[in-house]
Amino acid sequence: MTVSNTPLQSHAFYMARAIHLARRGHYTTFPNPRVGCVLVKSGKIIAEGWHQKAGEGHAEVNALAKTDAAEGATAYVTLEPCSHTGKTPPCCDALIRAGVSRVVIGMVDPNPLVAGNGIHKLQAAGIEVLTGVCEADARALNPGFIQRMTEKRPFVRAKLACSLDGRTAMASGESQWITGAAARTQVQRLRAGSSAIISGVDSVIADDSALTVRAEQLNLTDAEQIAKRQPLRVVLDSHLRLPESAKILQQPGETLIVFTQMDSDKQERLEKAGATCLQLSAENGRVSLKALMTYLNQRECNEVLLETGATLAGAFAEAELIDELVVFMAPTLMGDGARGLLHLPGIRKMADQKRLMLTDCRMVGTDMMITARFTGKSQ
Amino acid sequence: MTVSNTPLQSHAFYMARAIHLARRGHYTTFPNPRVGCVLVKSGKIIAEGWHQKAGEGHAEVNALAKTDAAEGATAYVTLEPCSHTGKTPPCCDALIRAGVSRVVIGMVDPNPLVAGNGIHKLQAAGIEVLTGVCEADARALNPGFIQRMTEKRPFVRAKLACSLDGRTAMASGESQWITGAAARTQVQRLRAGSSAIISGVDSVIADDSALTVRAEQLNLTDAEQIAKRQPLRVVLDSHLRLPESAKILQQPGETLIVFTQMDSDKQERLEKAGATCLQLSAENGRVSLKALMTYLNQRECNEVLLETGATLAGAFAEAELIDELVVFMAPTLMGDGARGLLHLPGIRKMADQKRLMLTDCRMVGTDMMITARFTGKSQ
Repeated sequence: MTVSNTPLQSHAFYMARAIHLARRGHYTTFPNPRVGCVLVKSGKIIAEGWHQKAGEGHAEVNALAKTDAAEGATAYVTLEPCSHTGKTPPCCDALIRAGVSRVVIGMVDPNPLVAGNGIHKLQAAGIEVLTGVCEADARALNPGFIQRMTEKRPFVRAKLACSLDGRTAMASGESQWITGAAARTQVQRLRAGSSAIISGVDSVIADDSALTVRAEQLNLTDAEQIAKRQPLRVVLDSHLRLPESAKILQQPGETLIVFTQMDSDKQERLEKAGATCLQLSAENGRVSLKALMTYLNQRECNEVLLETGATLAGAFAEAELIDELVVFMAPTLMGDGARGLLHLPGIRKMADQKRLMLTDCRMVGTDMMITARFTGKSQ
Repeated sequence: MTVSNTPLQSHAFYMARAIHLARRGHYTTFPNPRVGCVLVKSGKIIAEGWHQKAGEGHAEVNALAKTDAAEGATAYVTLEPCSHTGKTPPCCDALIRAGVSRVVIGMVDPNPLVAGNGIHKLQAAGIEVLTGVCEADARALNPGFIQRMTEKRPFVRAKLACSLDGRTAMASGESQWITGAAARTQVQRLRAGSSAIISGVDSVIADDSALTVRAEQLNLTDAEQIAKRQPLRVVLDSHLRLPESAKILQQPGETLIVFTQMDSDKQERLEKAGATCLQLSAENGRVSLKALMTYLNQRECNEVLLETGATLAGAFAEAELIDELVVFMAPTLMGDGARGLLHLPGIRKMADQKRLMLTDCRMVGTDMMITARFTGKSQ
């Protein structure tokens, strides 16, 4: 079988479109990855599809459903087509059956146990396969899914808010909304794109937080639909101190209270108030963060958002369990008497500092949104 | 006299060009303002000019020198043409003599005592005058010159460098270059665009700072030329503690040591080592910052760069003498045990916080450069 030569920039062009389509599933595909697909024949896009919701059609199937002329076409898929039967039949079979002559893939399946199986199946059927086109962008669609497949833990994004001089509250504890409405919309979107939100019981009690996605603050056309799925709310509460009257227990979706110190009475009261309770092992007098990661991985949480105070966020950072920091910074000075952003008692000399890689910084309204990745090593 | 109607967007187009030309004088016009001029006739630019150096031709004169067909043209000038004789003859007279029929002005002369005189002179000669075209951008060319004319003090820009969590050094004082080479190039450009650089004696001793503009770090085509003019280096040194061996005294250009406590011996030794010494009044045990501003205004300093530690920068901020903050922020975490960005003992509650207006944030190399203006009021 021969196929026409397509220059690499054309591959990138169509893959960019497939990536764009994949993003439409940003808030809805959990626990599945975001995937997009474009079918191209004689230099024309003949059909497009993207994965919308677990249990429903994958991107390739959704694209194939829109045309009966896929024979001889090139399929651009952001992620290697699956070769196994999950909730839906394998996409490889659908592509082979439709008679496509070439499949261009953004990234191979991140699960090392199945990676390449889809490619082999396609090649065995005589289909030309090209991989790694726009791979960085294809990977960026699914940081959580990839990490879950490769490292068996979710991608943890810590959201922090502070002043220009890195402060969160006065020494007295006095605090208030530091950042503006545009920043809050971004926080809502981070929540909506997460499988779970983690907070500490002290923060939840202090702010009486709801930790919900609120449609009216998302500023997205399909906000109502998105807000129907509420991320799992996880409260780290070693001694089950959360009061039953807490606002977080009265919200749609599930609130999971993670404790270490058994207390049947308190547990029963919280469960009556609507919570799910889970006992995990203790480490240094608090919930073992590693055990928590293992649990969230089992629950197929891709990306989790850490929204908490300086102490718990610092503990995550020192345990090297934060993958990305998103800092909302207000252009205000609170002075060096005010409370710091992250409690990191382990840093005593410059060599201990935790180096990150800046991936984005932008103005949101009157504030800044700074995104940085932990590189996984000090300095 | 009648002139053809020109739609406002055309005025903005040519004024944008004049502003662009004015920027070419960014590093060289001191103490004069940066000014650009474009001559337009029948929809075509017939000549351009900008002010390059004090004592040499103004923008209008430089543009007029390039054409003998200015009669009936429209002159676009970023700043109201001068009507008085300074080191060069008044530009208004040159424009009138050349026979231009219209003058479009970005901003009127900021000096309230002469503002409008140029306009009246042009109008009296029958020339149509339009003002305030692209005014915000025209003003942004000369924050220092404008402030000096209107408030009799320089525009103070404080440069700070810190980690993502707002820290500058370990509790022990241990510190090192936090930001990378691209950020240092930006600092060099800030210095090169300043009339003076202010630092405190403690910082200068601790770092043995030179506080010079270094051509090789500017990364500009005319770097050598720019570095020939060194900004005035001002060291606040109440008790004349600077050692004569300090590196700052061995640099090209002038080092001014400002003291409060007379000590003829020390003064003589420092002057022998190349310094200029100036006694100013004391306030709260240190150099009166207001007296310093008055002095720098008398020396025709437009923009001054404050490069110093948390204490002195904090004192400037509390005295409301900082106009703009430029923060170079490295994506690293130093922890809440580390030293803060600004010592602001006056802030004890949220209502005391110092609100700024974010004007720019961008990535420079691996770091961020954040620019914010003090709005002049708390909250």
